[in-house]
Amino acid sequence: MVVEIISVGTEILLGNIVNTNAAYLSEKCAGLGFSCYYQDVVGDNEERLCETIRTALSRADILLLSGGLGPTQDDLTKETAAKVLGKSLKLHEESKAAIREFFEKRGIEPTDNNWKQAMVPEGCIVLANPNGTAPGIIMEDNGKHVVLMPGPPNEMIPMFEASVMPYLSKLQSCVIFSQTVKICGVGESKAETMVRDLIDSQSNPTIATYAKTGEVHLRVTARAEDEKAARKLVKPVVKELKGRFGSHVYTTDDEVTLEKSVVDLLLANSLTISTVESCTGGLLAARLINVPGVSEVFKSGYITYSNKAKRRLLGIKKNTLLKYGAVSEEIASQMAKGAAMVSKADVVVSITGIAGPDGGSQEKPVGLVYIGCNVCGRMKVKKCHFSGDRSKVRENTVSSALSLMRECILEYYSEVTFGGKEK
Amino acid sequence: MVVEIISVGTEILLGNIVNTNAAYLSEKCAGLGFSCYYQDVVGDNEERLCETIRTALSRADILLLSGGLGPTQDDLTKETAAKVLGKSLKLHEESKAAIREFFEKRGIEPTDNNWKQAMVPEGCIVLANPNGTAPGIIMEDNGKHVVLMPGPPNEMIPMFEASVMPYLSKLQSCVIFSQTVKICGVGESKAETMVRDLIDSQSNPTIATYAKTGEVHLRVTARAEDEKAARKLVKPVVKELKGRFGSHVYTTDDEVTLEKSVVDLLLANSLTISTVESCTGGLLAARLINVPGVSEVFKSGYITYSNKAKRRLLGIKKNTLLKYGAVSEEIASQMAKGAAMVSKADVVVSITGIAGPDGGSQEKPVGLVYIGCNVCGRMKVKKCHFSGDRSKVRENTVSSALSLMRECILEYYSEVTFGGKEK
Repeated sequence: MVVEIISVGTEILLGNIVNTNAAYLSEKCAGLGFSCYYQDVVGDNEERLCETIRTALSRADILLLSGGLGPTQDDLTKETAAKVLGKSLKLHEESKAAIREFFEKRGIEPTDNNWKQAMVPEGCIVLANPNGTAPGIIMEDNGKHVVLMPGPPNEMIPMFEASVMPYLSKLQSCVIFSQTVKICGVGESKAETMVRDLIDSQSNPTIATYAKTGEVHLRVTARAEDEKAARKLVKPVVKELKGRFGSHVYTTDDEVTLEKSVVDLLLANSLTISTVESCTGGLLAARLINVPGVSEVFKSGYITYSNKAKRRLLGIKKNTLLKYGAVSEEIASQMAKGAAMVSKADVVVSITGIAGPDGGSQEKPVGLVYIGCNVCGRMKVKKCHFSGDRSKVRENTVSSALSLMRECILEYYSEVTFGGKEK
Repeated sequence: MVVEIISVGTEILLGNIVNTNAAYLSEKCAGLGFSCYYQDVVGDNEERLCETIRTALSRADILLLSGGLGPTQDDLTKETAAKVLGKSLKLHEESKAAIREFFEKRGIEPTDNNWKQAMVPEGCIVLANPNGTAPGIIMEDNGKHVVLMPGPPNEMIPMFEASVMPYLSKLQSCVIFSQTVKICGVGESKAETMVRDLIDSQSNPTIATYAKTGEVHLRVTARAEDEKAARKLVKPVVKELKGRFGSHVYTTDDEVTLEKSVVDLLLANSLTISTVESCTGGLLAARLINVPGVSEVFKSGYITYSNKAKRRLLGIKKNTLLKYGAVSEEIASQMAKGAAMVSKADVVVSITGIAGPDGGSQEKPVGLVYIGCNVCGRMKVKKCHFSGDRSKVRENTVSSALSLMRECILEYYSEVTFGGKEK
């Protein structure tokens, strides 16, 4: 079946907001095995919206619209879609009650135009919206399915997951099952070369590669008559990928991020962590602290952007800074050692680099970064060179630091185990 | 004139990437005074791309296409657009030379299909691409303008700014001039209410409000026959807005961010700064450190996520933590005082809060945040309650902290001045 995604809102056409809804819905539809040939954006204008819906009905089976369900005069997605399909609007008592309750909870008086949101096309399926006042709507007509959802992502996404996804799944005669093999520490082109033969040789399951900052995700997707059969197709391919990428695979769980995999590794080994950052200025700590449960292991974070802070907080000598320069292997190492001493953490990661736009030289260009990682006294320093602007260099640095932490912790345990010593 | 934005690429339809190009081009076109009624996304498919271009030509004067100019068989935007306009392709020697140079610089051997990128439609304008191998193309036909640009934003944006923007400006009979009044510390709906009468009563200049995290931007846009006349129209409106929002206006310069305005204020007053963060885990420091030149004023940053770190790094007593709880006015104040003592910075900002999803209670719900700001010994603590998920709470907290810093520094100087004391 073919799906078309229509985003409604003049604010998108003015460039005020980036259309993340379309990307979200496209990814979900691909995961469900639907084909999507067009995404459209149209403003809050009846005539143009009519034309867009008619065109989409002529070339797709399922229309997913988001936006334009608000209470104001400008919002006319529901009215327009109903008109195109020849449906009239009627009051939906349950939605009216839900709207009343929504306002009561917040101690706000609804205005008259809020009740407009309780009007729905006759014969439609109404979808609850726990995060807002606009209910979702599904209209069925001549084998076509028109789904209307609110525009704000924090309303649209929960509604899609709770109500639209199960509805769409039922329209699929086959079942689609995907699993993602997430890899760190291997570049995108190298990863692609390593799986090119698999991508070329099979059509079910398919393998798609997605490059993320400092990571590559390989999504394995199978189509079968039931989930069990689809999982059975996916399993050997995931196994093969795990074999090829070895310890670079940090998870095969969609919900697990690189930072979560690192925090899980710390938790599993009862290791505490501290960070000490220069050019990333707290971004690494911020990513770790975005993982719920990190408080068990995170000791402290230091942001030593200036040389003075490196000296005062970490005890690095002025002469050492002068001799090697702040961006050097020696200083990355001393930063990690200093922070390990001060914070008494088992694992310490240090970052020093030149994020740009200024501060680069022939010898030490913008993008040069040293990342140190000290695991229970074993130190490793990695020299990196990133391209891109200040933000890009900082983001890449943080991802590489997470990869390095993972690598160093795994190495530490493999060494102490092979060496016969237990921690 | 009417513009239509067409993004070409199957990866967008699969949801692999978010279509930021469309948002960028829409914003630029709005700034140039063009109307945009549709954005389209279509895959790398000749038939569907043909249909999309034909439809767009029937309803717009200018088509801005991005994507599908690569060297592979899949890339067919140029071939398809030329076909629709009835133009044949010919070799463009300069582009061929540019491609050769591009590869030579990088020490890579071009493959045969790279030369396909040097073929351009007859009679077109060729646009240089300093960041890639695909030249941009402008075709003119029957009063219509079809612009082809590469898909990667790091190639598209510089090409748009250097070549497309000047071309489009010439198509405008009038000149558009905008200025943005950026406001912090005032909520979106309050800001809108405060300017509603201005928005409703004038059409040239127009005033548009843009809600950002913790900020509101008011863009004043005038249309006139030359820039001088347009600026003259904008000036009194900007003055009026500055009068209405007073010290909440942090800049009227498009390039200045809230964090830059704070850093500028610190630099202007020779004040040093340290940060101490709990739930934001380094995000505030990271935002400040994203401002080039901050090294002059940033002393150090502490991330004291755990109670132990608060005690060890800042000298906060265990009893105080037990009595008030880590998320309290008292602890925010003690964190700032402790960090001021340890780092000897003039300004210290502290953050403690519950970002969620766990850790909330009836008394202290998720989203409760205390922000402390100590300016040369004068302390102010702000209690905030943010909604949204963990990331949203953290982002809002950082913006509020920047607003509070600005407010406290300005207050400090107005007080010491009115009090007759100079620092």
